[in-house]
Amino acid sequence: MTERAGRPGEFDLIARYLRPLADDPAAFNLTDDAAAFTPTPGMDLVLTKDMVAAGIHFFPDDPPASIARKALRVNLSDLAAKGATPIGYLLGLALPADWTEDWMAAFSAALGQDQLTYGIALLGGDTVKAPSGLVLSITAIGEVPSGGMVRRLGARPGDAIVVSGTIGDAALGLRLRLGALDGAPAGAGAAHLLDRYLHPRPRLALAGAVRRHARAALDVSDGLMGDLGHITRASNVSALVEAAAVPLSDAARHLVEADEAALTSVLTGGDDYEILAIIPPERLDAYEAEAIAAGVPVAVIGRIVEGSAPPAALGRDGTPLHLGRASHDHF
Amino acid sequence: MTERAGRPGEFDLIARYLRPLADDPAAFNLTDDAAAFTPTPGMDLVLTKDMVAAGIHFFPDDPPASIARKALRVNLSDLAAKGATPIGYLLGLALPADWTEDWMAAFSAALGQDQLTYGIALLGGDTVKAPSGLVLSITAIGEVPSGGMVRRLGARPGDAIVVSGTIGDAALGLRLRLGALDGAPAGAGAAHLLDRYLHPRPRLALAGAVRRHARAALDVSDGLMGDLGHITRASNVSALVEAAAVPLSDAARHLVEADEAALTSVLTGGDDYEILAIIPPERLDAYEAEAIAAGVPVAVIGRIVEGSAPPAALGRDGTPLHLGRASHDHF
Repeated sequence: MTERAGRPGEFDLIARYLRPLADDPAAFNLTDDAAAFTPTPGMDLVLTKDMVAAGIHFFPDDPPASIARKALRVNLSDLAAKGATPIGYLLGLALPADWTEDWMAAFSAALGQDQLTYGIALLGGDTVKAPSGLVLSITAIGEVPSGGMVRRLGARPGDAIVVSGTIGDAALGLRLRLGALDGAPAGAGAAHLLDRYLHPRPRLALAGAVRRHARAALDVSDGLMGDLGHITRASNVSALVEAAAVPLSDAARHLVEADEAALTSVLTGGDDYEILAIIPPERLDAYEAEAIAAGVPVAVIGRIVEGSAPPAALGRDGTPLHLGRASHDHF
Repeated sequence: MTERAGRPGEFDLIARYLRPLADDPAAFNLTDDAAAFTPTPGMDLVLTKDMVAAGIHFFPDDPPASIARKALRVNLSDLAAKGATPIGYLLGLALPADWTEDWMAAFSAALGQDQLTYGIALLGGDTVKAPSGLVLSITAIGEVPSGGMVRRLGARPGDAIVVSGTIGDAALGLRLRLGALDGAPAGAGAAHLLDRYLHPRPRLALAGAVRRHARAALDVSDGLMGDLGHITRASNVSALVEAAAVPLSDAARHLVEADEAALTSVLTGGDDYEILAIIPPERLDAYEAEAIAAGVPVAVIGRIVEGSAPPAALGRDGTPLHLGRASHDHF
């Protein structure tokens, strides 16, 4: 262990900030080289891994608590959309040379709060020096009844396209953050958009309903139309979305009403982390009822149709909107 | 998807270079948001995650095939030392802006070769832009009979300390690479040391014997004496190592005979990825016989003793060597 300027080395950093998060027997208090656990009989393991990097997925000067929440929650959002219940996660942390104890304390405290919220534990991971900017790699582990993971494929013509929550807030929040939003709101509206960009809310409360009723699902991370395209390509179908049916927050609605170009950000901007589910017509009532019971608003925004064309978003007059690009590329 | 200078974006990169590696049903051809598989009844899942970063764990201009092998094999080495059989892995790849198709082709081809060698598949992962240098984060998944993961704790006074292969080659190879090795060998000796630094050889053939006979085990990554200290601390014991019993390659032996200071690199340098196993005396014959049958040389290098002192390395006269530091800090 190397001490530099009184800062702890890797082993002390783990002991001080990460071990308190590893309160599951599978983690062996982070004192071993691997985690181990006995899977629940009759359940499949679901594994997902999302990396986030400074300057790409978040701003280096974002609050450490926000960086922690985003890195963890984008993974939990994948599990929710696949119908899975999260068990725990492994954390890969590549720290730049100028990390501070205050940063690490706030970062790990936020992970601890989210662990309580979502009923998970840190199971293991690795901490290394980063060549320059911070990189976080989280592997999240969940479970579903065997064979029950909800796929991207399976959508059929006539199925309803249903999204949770509101769409576009995060993309507008990012543009606000970048100073690139004309007619930018102030006060509560701005705070809402910025918060949606910083703090994804994985829709784990909806995972059971998705598993029971969706033919296909994913979480909206690259942009609504692009992610819908992932489903239609995998399912060999096409889709029509009524733009006016896409649920908007008050802040987003004001922006779209003031400037129609904002609608492109809403429909293609990404970082929503809402669940896009394809529901057969006979299951729609049950899905909506279970969503309401789970406290998650959902809205039908269109339908699956035959064909191989990319999904189209229709304006109020029923003609396709020209959106330019279908999704945001984090890469 | 953004195309820059004719180079593929994230989706094409995945389709071209990573999808061919994902030949396990659990991976869904990398066309979904998560992997899913049914665990083998009666087995525990073992999960480990090691990150490697350019400039920290490898040189940015190392051959891409070597970077791929090191990133994957350091994880498989953890599984082997825990007695686990690997199933597959998830790959997190943070690529700097100047990546090339040639680099990616060589990198993914090397992963494919290792997958055949070790009987595993790519199950999922994520590919993002790196703020600057390359960062790789691999989560490896293995299985052991329930409750059978070999821990760091469990060593008892009187147990034998046994290592596989030869120790110190990689540390001397790194010093050779850095031009920091006095009396550096040339020809085959140099090639051997450099190869051991670049290409860990996970001792998966030994995993079964470790599981059947070891009270405690880990892979030597931070340095022999430091890693032995991890075991003695976890087990509330101490240890004595006879330095002359530590198995050396011909190249390492020549260096140690020419300059005793090289012995410090051997005993503390790290990156060996050999298995350090603590074997009770009554199991020693069986462990050695199974190791020979598996084609892996093993050597008894010392014994566990009572006490709480850090492990000591003894010279030929039986007095402790002064090694300065116990292990290499990658952090």
